[in-house]
Amino acid sequence: MSQRDAYRHFLPIPTRWKDNDVYGHVNNVEYYSYFDTVINTYLITTGGLDIHRGPVIGLCAESHCRFASEIAFPETVEAGLRVEHLGNSSVRYGIGLFRPGHEAPAAEGWFVHVFVERETRRASPLPDSIRAALQPLLVEVAR
Amino acid sequence: MSQRDAYRHFLPIPTRWKDNDVYGHVNNVEYYSYFDTVINTYLITTGGLDIHRGPVIGLCAESHCRFASEIAFPETVEAGLRVEHLGNSSVRYGIGLFRPGHEAPAAEGWFVHVFVERETRRASPLPDSIRAALQPLLVEVAR
Amino acid sequence: MSQRDAYRHFLPIPTRWKDNDVYGHVNNVEYYSYFDTVINTYLITTGGLDIHRGPVIGLCAESHCRFASEIAFPETVEAGLRVEHLGNSSVRYGIGLFRPGHEAPAAEGWFVHVFVERETRRASPLPDSIRAALQPLLVEVAR
Amino acid sequence: MSQRDAYRHFLPIPTRWKDNDVYGHVNNVEYYSYFDTVINTYLITTGGLDIHRGPVIGLCAESHCRFASEIAFPETVEAGLRVEHLGNSSVRYGIGLFRPGHEAPAAEGWFVHVFVERETRRASPLPDSIRAALQPLLVEVAR
Repeated sequence: MSQRDAYRHFLPIPTRWKDNDVYGHVNNVEYYSYFDTVINTYLITTGGLDIHRGPVIGLCAESHCRFASEIAFPETVEAGLRVEHLGNSSVRYGIGLFRPGHEAPAAEGWFVHVFVERETRRASPLPDSIRAALQPLLVEVAR
Repeated sequence: MSQRDAYRHFLPIPTRWKDNDVYGHVNNVEYYSYFDTVINTYLITTGGLDIHRGPVIGLCAESHCRFASEIAFPETVEAGLRVEHLGNSSVRYGIGLFRPGHEAPAAEGWFVHVFVERETRRASPLPDSIRAALQPLLVEVAR
Repeated sequence: MSQRDAYRHFLPIPTRWKDNDVYGHVNNVEYYSYFDTVINTYLITTGGLDIHRGPVIGLCAESHCRFASEIAFPETVEAGLRVEHLGNSSVRYGIGLFRPGHEAPAAEGWFVHVFVERETRRASPLPDSIRAALQPLLVEVAR
Repeated sequence: MSQRDAYRHFLPIPTRWKDNDVYGHVNNVEYYSYFDTVINTYLITTGGLDIHRGPVIGLCAESHCRFASEIAFPETVEAGLRVEHLGNSSVRYGIGLFRPGHEAPAAEGWFVHVFVERETRRASPLPDSIRAALQPLLVEVAR
């Protein structure tokens, strides 16, 4: 799995009480919520995405996660983000979730956004401001 | 607490794996999600509320819940609904959450909707179709 | 994508108000909650899994989802389940999420459970009752 | 409503993508998740509550929230906490949720914990370490 230095941007995400499930650790579902959050926070604050009124929005087409070790409330997760593919109307992000002080991820995954026109939901080129924000996060990934 | 026969409409809501928290039962937060769900399902299917495009929407102004006994996944909750006050632009609902076969609630609460114009968020009279849908659920409540 | 008849067990899962996100449809994260719910409901009710006290529990090692079309509250999702691999201590499930009346899925994915001892979190063979419950759901999958 | 200086302890809680609902703001249900999170984080880190193994746990008996203004992802909420009643086996917390730079709350509420023995779920006196942690947060509240 990719180590911490393979990511280009980080967001700390504190866990919440209800993230923990019956088995005492963060439920697998919530990891995807951390993915969603690091991606969209970056798109909004750095790329100027307007989730309320913008004409183009990003929809999730595919996602994946591999779980390596447990995270539990009240820990804070450090979500690492990189761009693995930057297409005309789609982006593939890589995400690593790290416990503070750890170089190896507790989980890693990827997430594909297809950008579409809000009204018609037809594929749209990435807005320039979003492309410009994502370019610095692009890395070469061997697959 | 009010028994099952104090409610006028029921919706079965199956619990989900992640509703359960570390203590092995449904987290208190999720109970409010059941409130939200029985209310809005009724407003949409019976009252014609259009949550995507309608000019008037209902926002939660206040809510409350008293917890009497535990619910746990994979149980199905039966959510009872009634209207305790039907104002010009606001509604107060009463909700009881029942385990199948039980007359006494596992929890009971209330929830106040203020209807507003979607764009300006200014108070608006209840749409006629919503008022008509809520009228049959209205009960006298001593407080 | 696999059609409805490729699945061996179905569970209806009503959506909830808060499943919908800003874009007016069920958030991608919630799909994984439906996966979790159809799998664990089956393991508990048919396989005798005791999530509170049982010595062996299933932890998610990997999951994946491909999103084909939108689902929105207040729709009910029909979650189809099958077993794609039944190992000594792990299971790979396939899940399809269907809108009522549709043969093609709104989304499909897979989910790997590794069974471990609750206390030590070391890999454990599947309990017999769980293996017996999963066997009838096993299908041949070309990959 | 109580202003910021009426609270004794604060925890920043970043919102998440899926906290936002169809109406573009944080869903009312999530506010209770912020309540849960500020309370339990404090009990664990300051009061020594062991949510996994401790013999005494806190269960929610009643909660309430009044919503004054909207919060939306990607904002960070500052959750203010105080203790309004410190009983033998129960605690009533007051919580205010503030947007950064605002003195008036976006929402305020309260939450009652009853402490019980984990196994029997019978009422238990508050553990000493928890009482000691909560004492400095106690305020006089006129009601």
